Amino acid sequence: MRRDVFTADHEAFRKLARDFIEKRIVPEYAAWEKAGQMPREIFAQLGELGLLGIAIPEEFGGAGLRDYRYNVILQEEAARALVTLATVRTQLDVILPYFLEYADTEQRKRWFPGLADGTLLSAIAMTEPGTGSDLAGVSTTAVRTGDDYVLNGAKTFITGGLLADLVIVVARTSTDPENRRAGLSLLVVENGMAGFERGRVLDKMGCKVQDTVELSFDNVRVPKANLLGEEGQAFSYLGNNLPQERMTVAVGSIAQARAAVTTTIEYVKERKAFGKPVSSFQNTKFELAAMSAEIEAGQTMIDRAVLDLVDGELSGSDAARVKLFCTEVQARVVDRCLQLFGGYGYMAEYPIARLYTDARVARIYAGTSEVMKVIIAKSLGL
Amino acid sequence: MRRDVFTADHEAFRKLARDFIEKRIVPEYAAWEKAGQMPREIFAQLGELGLLGIAIPEEFGGAGLRDYRYNVILQEEAARALVTLATVRTQLDVILPYFLEYADTEQRKRWFPGLADGTLLSAIAMTEPGTGSDLAGVSTTAVRTGDDYVLNGAKTFITGGLLADLVIVVARTSTDPENRRAGLSLLVVENGMAGFERGRVLDKMGCKVQDTVELSFDNVRVPKANLLGEEGQAFSYLGNNLPQERMTVAVGSIAQARAAVTTTIEYVKERKAFGKPVSSFQNTKFELAAMSAEIEAGQTMIDRAVLDLVDGELSGSDAARVKLFCTEVQARVVDRCLQLFGGYGYMAEYPIARLYTDARVARIYAGTSEVMKVIIAKSLGL
Amino acid sequence: MRRDVFTADHEAFRKLARDFIEKRIVPEYAAWEKAGQMPREIFAQLGELGLLGIAIPEEFGGAGLRDYRYNVILQEEAARALVTLATVRTQLDVILPYFLEYADTEQRKRWFPGLADGTLLSAIAMTEPGTGSDLAGVSTTAVRTGDDYVLNGAKTFITGGLLADLVIVVARTSTDPENRRAGLSLLVVENGMAGFERGRVLDKMGCKVQDTVELSFDNVRVPKANLLGEEGQAFSYLGNNLPQERMTVAVGSIAQARAAVTTTIEYVKERKAFGKPVSSFQNTKFELAAMSAEIEAGQTMIDRAVLDLVDGELSGSDAARVKLFCTEVQARVVDRCLQLFGGYGYMAEYPIARLYTDARVARIYAGTSEVMKVIIAKSLGL
Amino acid sequence: MRRDVFTADHEAFRKLARDFIEKRIVPEYAAWEKAGQMPREIFAQLGELGLLGIAIPEEFGGAGLRDYRYNVILQEEAARALVTLATVRTQLDVILPYFLEYADTEQRKRWFPGLADGTLLSAIAMTEPGTGSDLAGVSTTAVRTGDDYVLNGAKTFITGGLLADLVIVVARTSTDPENRRAGLSLLVVENGMAGFERGRVLDKMGCKVQDTVELSFDNVRVPKANLLGEEGQAFSYLGNNLPQERMTVAVGSIAQARAAVTTTIEYVKERKAFGKPVSSFQNTKFELAAMSAEIEAGQTMIDRAVLDLVDGELSGSDAARVKLFCTEVQARVVDRCLQLFGGYGYMAEYPIARLYTDARVARIYAGTSEVMKVIIAKSLGL
Repeated sequence: MRRDVFTADHEAFRKLARDFIEKRIVPEYAAWEKAGQMPREIFAQLGELGLLGIAIPEEFGGAGLRDYRYNVILQEEAARALVTLATVRTQLDVILPYFLEYADTEQRKRWFPGLADGTLLSAIAMTEPGTGSDLAGVSTTAVRTGDDYVLNGAKTFITGGLLADLVIVVARTSTDPENRRAGLSLLVVENGMAGFERGRVLDKMGCKVQDTVELSFDNVRVPKANLLGEEGQAFSYLGNNLPQERMTVAVGSIAQARAAVTTTIEYVKERKAFGKPVSSFQNTKFELAAMSAEIEAGQTMIDRAVLDLVDGELSGSDAARVKLFCTEVQARVVDRCLQLFGGYGYMAEYPIARLYTDARVARIYAGTSEVMKVIIAKSLGL
Repeated sequence: MRRDVFTADHEAFRKLARDFIEKRIVPEYAAWEKAGQMPREIFAQLGELGLLGIAIPEEFGGAGLRDYRYNVILQEEAARALVTLATVRTQLDVILPYFLEYADTEQRKRWFPGLADGTLLSAIAMTEPGTGSDLAGVSTTAVRTGDDYVLNGAKTFITGGLLADLVIVVARTSTDPENRRAGLSLLVVENGMAGFERGRVLDKMGCKVQDTVELSFDNVRVPKANLLGEEGQAFSYLGNNLPQERMTVAVGSIAQARAAVTTTIEYVKERKAFGKPVSSFQNTKFELAAMSAEIEAGQTMIDRAVLDLVDGELSGSDAARVKLFCTEVQARVVDRCLQLFGGYGYMAEYPIARLYTDARVARIYAGTSEVMKVIIAKSLGL
Repeated sequence: MRRDVFTADHEAFRKLARDFIEKRIVPEYAAWEKAGQMPREIFAQLGELGLLGIAIPEEFGGAGLRDYRYNVILQEEAARALVTLATVRTQLDVILPYFLEYADTEQRKRWFPGLADGTLLSAIAMTEPGTGSDLAGVSTTAVRTGDDYVLNGAKTFITGGLLADLVIVVARTSTDPENRRAGLSLLVVENGMAGFERGRVLDKMGCKVQDTVELSFDNVRVPKANLLGEEGQAFSYLGNNLPQERMTVAVGSIAQARAAVTTTIEYVKERKAFGKPVSSFQNTKFELAAMSAEIEAGQTMIDRAVLDLVDGELSGSDAARVKLFCTEVQARVVDRCLQLFGGYGYMAEYPIARLYTDARVARIYAGTSEVMKVIIAKSLGL
Repeated sequence: MRRDVFTADHEAFRKLARDFIEKRIVPEYAAWEKAGQMPREIFAQLGELGLLGIAIPEEFGGAGLRDYRYNVILQEEAARALVTLATVRTQLDVILPYFLEYADTEQRKRWFPGLADGTLLSAIAMTEPGTGSDLAGVSTTAVRTGDDYVLNGAKTFITGGLLADLVIVVARTSTDPENRRAGLSLLVVENGMAGFERGRVLDKMGCKVQDTVELSFDNVRVPKANLLGEEGQAFSYLGNNLPQERMTVAVGSIAQARAAVTTTIEYVKERKAFGKPVSSFQNTKFELAAMSAEIEAGQTMIDRAVLDLVDGELSGSDAARVKLFCTEVQARVVDRCLQLFGGYGYMAEYPIARLYTDARVARIYAGTSEVMKVIIAKSLGL
C-alpha cells in the first residue's frame, strides 16, 4: 500500500544511507560479527557523512532536524541489506534523545560535537543484575559529596558498553523508601574515570555485531557538571523516551521481517526440491503470502505510529501495541522463512539464520511483551 | 492511534447513522434474526434518511457522493451497536457499484430512484452449486433470442435473494471453449419474471439476519434492455469490484472485533469469578491487551486501504492482504473474547455468541483465505 | 498407532452401539436438533438394549460393569456417525457416578432399575446465576425441617433439565462463613415436587440436541431419604468425579475432531475448485496432515488417561491436561476442516457446521481452559 | 500420567546413564560447545561403560539387546541434564542400525568391536549440495572397477564427519534414468582412504557440540568388501530406518521441551520482577501449565510410538505424525520458556538459549515438517 510518511528530503537521505550501508557495512559485517562489535572508524565515517548528527543542532555540527523518520530510514536500509546498525541505532534512537532533551548549555558544548562527528560513543546503563527493567528496584547509588557524586553499583546488559566514551547511568540520588521511583538521576560517566570498569562481555544468542557488557562503579567520582537534567527526575525522563525506544524496536522488526521475506523469495525461486523449484509448491506460496499480509499490517501500523510520534501524539500504550504486535509478526515471519530454507536455514552463513537469532531479543528488550500487555491493559481500564 | 480518514461531513453522517441504528435497528434485531431477514420497511426508512442513496447521482434522488468512507461508517456504527446491516451492506458495498458503473441512461432512470429510496432491493447471483466462486465454471446460460436473453441455470448462496426486486445474474452469453472467462455477461432479472424462482432458504450457522437463498432460472426471458454494461465483459466487471467487496468484509471484521473487545471489557468488569472481578485476573488483562494490539494493527491497515481505495489506488493484492489479515484477526479476537464470557458466551442471547458465529463466514465469502493467498502469492512473483 | 485400551467384550459392545446409533439416532438427529432435545423413547430403547445399565449392578437390571471404557465407546461411535449422544452422555458419564457411589440401599432400590431401563432421566444442578462453577459461591439453601429439607434457590445451565425425573441439586445445608466449601450436600429433587419449576430453555450456539435450562426451587420439601451420601460432603463428592467428567469432554473432543477430518477428507475428494479436486491442492493435504498428527497426539493421550482412570490412577491435574489439550485440538481441527468446505461449511445442513458450533463449548464446560491451567499450575508447584 | 514403557533393566541402565552424564558430560559441555565437538575420549569411556554396545551382539563386545528403549533413555537423561549426546546419539540411533542390519560376517568382525568400545566413530553421508534430502537426486557416483568402487562426489550437512573413522556414503552405482531411486548403494568409506577429504566445518545456529561438515570424494577407491548390504538396495534400506530416525528426533524434542519447562520453573520461582517472584504472576502459571499439557500429549504419543517401534509395528506415517507433532511442541515450548527468562534467556550462558537454538533444527532434519506432511497426507489417501 501507499506510504505517506516520507518527503523528498527523506528519500535523498535514504539514498545516502543505502549507499553507505552497501559499501561500508555489508562487506565487513561478517567480520564484525566475529569480533563482536563494529569498529570505531565506522562511527567516524557515519559522522563525516552527517548520518549521526541529523538531530543535533547545526551550531554543534549537526543538521538540526529532530525528525524520527531519519532514524526509521536508517533501520529500513540496514534491514534491506540484511544487516543491522547495531550500536549506531542504539545511540541515535535510544541514547541521543536524553542528551538532546536534558543536556545544559555547557554539556552541549562538551559533547554534541563529538556525538555528531562520531568521535564520542555513548551507552545507557539502566538494568541491574537481579532487578531487570524495574526501575523502582535500582540499587546503584550516587551520593553527593562536595561537587561530585560518588557512584557505586553494577549494571548489566549494557549495549555498546565496550567502546562507550559516555555512559548515562541511572543512579539513586535519594533513598526515600516511600517512593522508590523518585530519587533517580542520570549521571554521565566518562571513559577513564577512576573506579569505572567494564566487566564481562556477555555472550548472546544473536545480535553478535553489538557488544553487551557488564559495568561496575566503585566509588566513581562523577562531577556535578555531569548530571543530565535535574536531580531526581530520571524516572520521568526515562518514561518520556519509552515510546520512541519501543518504536525503534518495532521499526526494526518489520523492516527485518520484510527483508526475511525478500531473501526467502529469492531463495525458493532458485532452490529445487524433488525436481521442482521450492517456489512452485503451494505451501511455499501460501506461507509467503500469509507473511506478506502480516508484514503489510505491521507496516501500516508503523507508518501511522511514526507520524504520531513525529507529531508528539503517540501514547505510551499505542507504542506498546506497536511493539507487541510488530515483534510478534517478526517472530512468526522469520521462523516460517527459515523453515523454507530447509537445512540451509540453520547455517550461520545464510542471513536468515542471523535474522532468526537476532529477532528473538525483540520481544524482550525495551520492555518484554508481557510488560507491553500490562501497559495496554491499563489503557483499557483493566 | 490517530485516524485521518474522515472529514467533518463524514462525522455528521456518522451521527445520523448511529442514531438510526440505535433507534430502529437495535430494538428489532433479535426479532429479525428469528425471522431470518430484515423487513422491507427498514430499507424505506434508510432511504428516506438518505443513507441508501449517498453514492447515487442527485438527479435520481441520491447525494452524488461516491465515497466509500460513508460505507465504512455504516459498518462501524452497526458493529458498535453489536448488530450488522446485513443485506443493506451487501447492496451498498457489493451490488450498487455495478449499477453505478455500468447502468446505461435508461437503466439509471428505471432503477436509481428506487435504489436510492429503498423501494428497490437488489441481489447479485454469481455462485453456482458445484462451482463455488470460480467464474470460469459458470454454467448458467443466456441465449440471445430476438430482443431477449433466454436464461437457464441455478445459483446458490444468494444473499438477500428473498426480497430482491432486481437480481444481477452472471450468465454465459457465449460458449467459446477456449476462453471460459470470456462470454460472461450481467443480466438484471426482475421479480416476477416468468421462470424465475427462489428455492430453499439456506440455514446458516450465523448471519441469521440476512437470508441466503437458492435461485433458479427456467427459460426466463430477460429483455436486452436489462443487460448491464456490455455483453461478454462480466468477468472484468466483477474483477474491478473485488477490491471493494473484500474491503467491505475486512472493514466489518475489524469493526466487529473491536465491538467484541468493548463488550467483553464491560462484561469482565462486572462479572465475578472466585470472588473477584474477572477483569482482575492477569490472564484476562493479557488476553484483551493482545487483542487490542491486533485490532489496532487491523485498523491502521484498514484506514490506509480505505484511503487507497477512495483514490483508486488499492491493488487487488493489497485488498487481498487486508481481507486475509483482518478476517483472521476477527476470528482470533471473537474466539478469545467468547472464552472470557465462560458459559454465558455460549448462550445465543449474549451478542458475543452471535459475533462468533457471524465471524466464521468472513474467512470464506468474497473469496476464501486460500484464494487471498493465491492472489497475494502471484503479486510476489510466486 | 495401535490402541491397547479395548478388549473383545468392548468391541462387541461397540458393534451394538454403532448399530443402534446408525439405525435409531442418525435418521432422527436433525429433527431432534430442531426440537431441542431427544425424545424420552430413545432412552427406553437404549435401556432395553442394555446400553444405559452397563455400570449398574446386575440385581437392578444392569450389567454390573463399572468400566469407563464402555462410555468411551459410546462417544466414539456417536462421533463416528457425526452425532452426539447429548444428555445420554451426561447421564452416564457425569451423573450416574454419583448414584453409583453414594446412593444407599433404599435409594438403589428406588432409582437403579429406572436408571438402567431408561425410564428415569436425571440431571445435575450445580451452577447458579452469578457464581458460575465456583462451588464456594453456591447460595441455594436446604434447611432441615423435620424429616425434610426445605430447598430454596435457582440453578442455571442445567443440561437435560427439561425431561429429568431426578435432579441432583447441590445445596448449602450449613452456612459456616469460615468454610464456604463445607456445608454443601446433594439432594435428589424429583419431578413433580411442589415448588420445583423449570425456567427458560436457554438458546445455545450449538449442542442443539440437548436442552439446557434454568431451574428454580421455591420451598421445595425434599425428604431426608433423598439426601445422596452424607450431609456436608458434596464438595468432596463433586471433586472426586471431576477427572471423569473432564475426561468425558476430552474423549468427545478427539472423537469429534477425528470425525471432522474423516468427513472433510471425503468432501475434498469429491469437491472441485478451479477444475481440480480440492484434495489435490497441497494446502488441503498439509492442513489435513497437520490435523491428523494433532488428533493422533490427542488419541494417545486419551488412551493413556482412560487406562489410568479405569485403574483409579488418573490425577486431577492430568485430567486437566487432557481436557485442556484435547479441547484445543478439537477447536483447531474443526475450524480448519470447516475452512476446507468453503461456503458449504457455513451451512447448517453440513455436519461440519454443527461440529464447529458444538465444539465451542468444550473449552468452557466441565471447567474452562483457564480453570484447567490453574489446576495444572498448582501441580507444578506454581 | 503413568508410563508403561520401561522395565527394571531399563531403569538400571538409566541410572548408569544419568551418572555418566552428570559426571563426565555436564562439566565439560560448555567447553565442547566452544570446540565444536565432543572429544574422542568420551566415546571410549561410553564404550567402556557399555553404553555404546547395547545393541551389538555379545560376541563383538556388546550386550546384544536390540531395544530402542535404551536409546530413548540416553536422550531422556541427557536432556534432563540440559545437554545432548550430539554425535553419540547420531551413531546409536541413526547409523548403527545400518551396520546391524546389513553388515556381512566379515564386516561385523572388522567393525563391531570398535563400534562397541568407542574406538570407531561413524557418520552417514546422504545429503548433497543442491539436492537436499531428495534421494532421487543423488549424484555421487560409485563405478565398479575390478574389486573396487571408484567414488566421486560431494556431500554436505554430515553430522560427526570430522572424527568419523567410517562414513556410510550413499552413492549411485547404476544410472538407469528411468528409476532414479534404484541404483543407490551404501559404501563404507574409511578414514585415510586416498581422495577422501573433509571440507568446511559448517557454522550452525545451534547444536554447537556436534560438528557438521562437508565431505568430498575424488576418485576414492572403496573396496567391494566395504559395500554395505546389496548393491542397488540403498533406497529401501534408508527408507526402513526412517521411522527410527524420526522417532529419535521426536524423543529428543519432548525430552528437551520437558527439561526446558523444568529449568524455567526453577528460574521463575527464584527470579523476581516488580518485587514479586515471576512464578507468582498468572501469566507465568498459565504459560507453564499450557506447556505442561502439550508435553504430556507429546510424551504419551512418544511412549505409544516407542512400543510400536520396538514391536516393529510403527508405520512410516505414524513416525511422521510423531516427529511433526513433537518437534512443533518443542518449538512452542522453548520459545515460551525463553520468554519467561526475560533478558537472561537471550544469554548463551543460560541453557534455555541453547535449548532454543538447538531446537530449531528439529523441524528440519530427518525430513522437514513439510516432508512429514507429504507422508501423512499420502497415508490419508490424499
